[in-house]
Amino acid sequence: MRKYDVVVVGGSAAGITAAITSRRHYPDKNVLLVRQEEQVLIPCGIPYTFGTVGGPQNNLIPDGVLQKNEIELLVDAAADVNPQEHTVETAGGETIGYERLVLATGSIPIVPPIPGSDKGNIFAVKKDVSHLTQLCEAVDKASDLAIVGCGFIGVEIAEECRRRHETVNIRIVEMLRHCLQLVYDEEFCVRAEETLRGEDVELLLDEKVEAFVGDGSVAGVRLASGSEVAADVVIMGIGAAANTALAKKAGLEIGPGRGIEVNRYMQTSDPNIFACGDCADKVSFFDGKPSGLKLASIATMEARIAGANLFGPRRVNMGVIGVYSTLLGNTAFAAAGLTESLAREKGYRIIVGQAEAVNRHPGCMPGAEMMKVKLIFEAGSRVLLGGQVTGARSGGELINAISACINQRMTADDIATFQTGTHPALTASPISYQLVNAAEMAIAASWKGTGR
Amino acid sequence: MRKYDVVVVGGSAAGITAAITSRRHYPDKNVLLVRQEEQVLIPCGIPYTFGTVGGPQNNLIPDGVLQKNEIELLVDAAADVNPQEHTVETAGGETIGYERLVLATGSIPIVPPIPGSDKGNIFAVKKDVSHLTQLCEAVDKASDLAIVGCGFIGVEIAEECRRRHETVNIRIVEMLRHCLQLVYDEEFCVRAEETLRGEDVELLLDEKVEAFVGDGSVAGVRLASGSEVAADVVIMGIGAAANTALAKKAGLEIGPGRGIEVNRYMQTSDPNIFACGDCADKVSFFDGKPSGLKLASIATMEARIAGANLFGPRRVNMGVIGVYSTLLGNTAFAAAGLTESLAREKGYRIIVGQAEAVNRHPGCMPGAEMMKVKLIFEAGSRVLLGGQVTGARSGGELINAISACINQRMTADDIATFQTGTHPALTASPISYQLVNAAEMAIAASWKGTGR
Repeated sequence: MRKYDVVVVGGSAAGITAAITSRRHYPDKNVLLVRQEEQVLIPCGIPYTFGTVGGPQNNLIPDGVLQKNEIELLVDAAADVNPQEHTVETAGGETIGYERLVLATGSIPIVPPIPGSDKGNIFAVKKDVSHLTQLCEAVDKASDLAIVGCGFIGVEIAEECRRRHETVNIRIVEMLRHCLQLVYDEEFCVRAEETLRGEDVELLLDEKVEAFVGDGSVAGVRLASGSEVAADVVIMGIGAAANTALAKKAGLEIGPGRGIEVNRYMQTSDPNIFACGDCADKVSFFDGKPSGLKLASIATMEARIAGANLFGPRRVNMGVIGVYSTLLGNTAFAAAGLTESLAREKGYRIIVGQAEAVNRHPGCMPGAEMMKVKLIFEAGSRVLLGGQVTGARSGGELINAISACINQRMTADDIATFQTGTHPALTASPISYQLVNAAEMAIAASWKGTGR
Repeated sequence: MRKYDVVVVGGSAAGITAAITSRRHYPDKNVLLVRQEEQVLIPCGIPYTFGTVGGPQNNLIPDGVLQKNEIELLVDAAADVNPQEHTVETAGGETIGYERLVLATGSIPIVPPIPGSDKGNIFAVKKDVSHLTQLCEAVDKASDLAIVGCGFIGVEIAEECRRRHETVNIRIVEMLRHCLQLVYDEEFCVRAEETLRGEDVELLLDEKVEAFVGDGSVAGVRLASGSEVAADVVIMGIGAAANTALAKKAGLEIGPGRGIEVNRYMQTSDPNIFACGDCADKVSFFDGKPSGLKLASIATMEARIAGANLFGPRRVNMGVIGVYSTLLGNTAFAAAGLTESLAREKGYRIIVGQAEAVNRHPGCMPGAEMMKVKLIFEAGSRVLLGGQVTGARSGGELINAISACINQRMTADDIATFQTGTHPALTASPISYQLVNAAEMAIAASWKGTGR
């Protein structure tokens, strides 16, 4: 029987990061990573395999990152965990001993029980090279592509399929009133929708799929409103569920959000077994309530906590904030924390500030684009709850400044007076810097509200 | 006699921002801004008037920002302040009453007492349209341009003069061993120097100007090392001194850094008079000692504190961190807080972490460029003291995330586990995100040092 100090099950973002982190924090321990996939896809890059990056083979996480960090690799499926014996049994028949085990088993696409879901040419988006290659080939032959779900996966795949196949009809069916509605406030969603429509993507919003129709292979989608649209290929992009099969077999507790239960140190109900990433249960940074967020950036954050804590508690998980970004057309859309509507739903009294300015100064500097920042604060304490950014690509980094502000529970005054750097060729001017001014506008709005 | 609730003297970044901030925080007060310039240049844009933006006229702060915020404007020089009477006398003969006065009188370029400084064609970089227009014309006719000082102004003007005039010989003379040495650590400075040399800018480092030579007009620069270089135009870019003339006449105290003395609320020694921007004395965020930093982004930060505090203390100045960015060639260089060498000089024990990764994932995504982050922490507490970024343009926003981390005195563990957002088209991957990994590398280095 092989024995390791640390065994990590799962080879995607969480597993790799947990392994690297344990290596960095405990350089004298040996680490084995067990994964079932021969090749590992970059999860967030999957939509771009349909167009921009030219196929799944160009979207792989190189195993060099494991070698560089002296992490041993075993390509085999973990079939069972025996917590009493501290062993993992693999499908290949190996028994591997561990001192500490990290479960990073990820998630599985949700396939809802819609009648006709078993017809041909209906695809979930699996993190699997041959599956994605098949899907790309199906898109190439499609006349009518239907995407179910207008979240990030849905909108990004729609754009990339348009890049891949200029003439295919693309329709997205979404239950909610707006695309990306769980992440952005309405004005940002509307802007995203305009971008998609401009790329000839039809949006069927506030519409529910009732059934998939066709003989053998899918031919159309029947909607709850009564209409039916043609579809010879369907892509399901409605989210994923924690993959807890191995944990359940091992007798570990499952949390209220249906992931593997973990404490703030990322320990499961067995203190020698940790979990992180999509398979682990999550709570919100804001109120400690269960959160369904599943993001690679959350997975790596949790993995950095789990990996550091394996042989002694060093780091605490503060709960998930949710930090997102994407690019639609040439416009970046980024968000962190609570939207205005989500904050209201959670019962917060809020104040909101917005600021829009060009991301260069003067505006005639090359590369000048508009960038808009919206910030949402709790009204009494003026603590930042969330922020949204649209416009220039550097919004992808600006949202991380906003995330730092949320993480540190900075107030509107803190943000209005925190020291930022600006440059003509890189950012808005110091007078009109959007992050700072959005905080100022929220304060100004609050004076008006109270009569000061 | 006209009377106003708020009178601001100075119409550049600090003055405008103080006026806008007082308007936002005290909407019922009337505000007058007095400035002597007919037109106000965007201060950080001045180097770009030599090339990219096509002249000073394209680099103006529009007065519309004052009108929009209902700020009255008087173009006239403030000649005297009478603190007893609460009045300002102007050169034009007006007497203006105030309840609160904000001095935002800026700075004046330093012209050191070098023999021959009075010769023709030796220019300081004044914030004045006609002066800059003259300077541009002189550059057009120049064969040999010498720039004294290899700080931000020096390097940016050198690049822009190269853009303006392909064949002129450009030389920068710098006393210190490296260009931008006060802001970046050596490896970053060396990269900046390589960029400049690649643009055919000659760097005379570790060299002091002894005299300017020539009959009437400058013809050359004599260096302390004994050599002499030709120069028919000289631009002095060695910094600026606080413009305190008006404050001194009014009897206000001057601080240890030779700016107008202010407390943490930005009040001068007269509690009804505030000062902000380059004219105000500054202290370091890190140790409270006098700081010579003068940046538009600091000026606006101070103005947002002064403007909010005019009729009651609301905001406190935590001292200057120093957040900088620039673009040299196609490479962004950004920095915040202390460099490694400055931290050592100040007596800190430090740990350092670096991480470099491409700013897209996978690396074949369009727009992929390398981006490197270096972080400097205090060794015991692991509190962040400073950070530097080179590479892609989005570094201009990433440095503001780093600044937020410094401002909040976040530790290496806080940064390693703070939640960031990543996206294939906008940032590095969540596994290799530079900010987070630089913190991890600093921690890993500290384990090695202690044997843990």
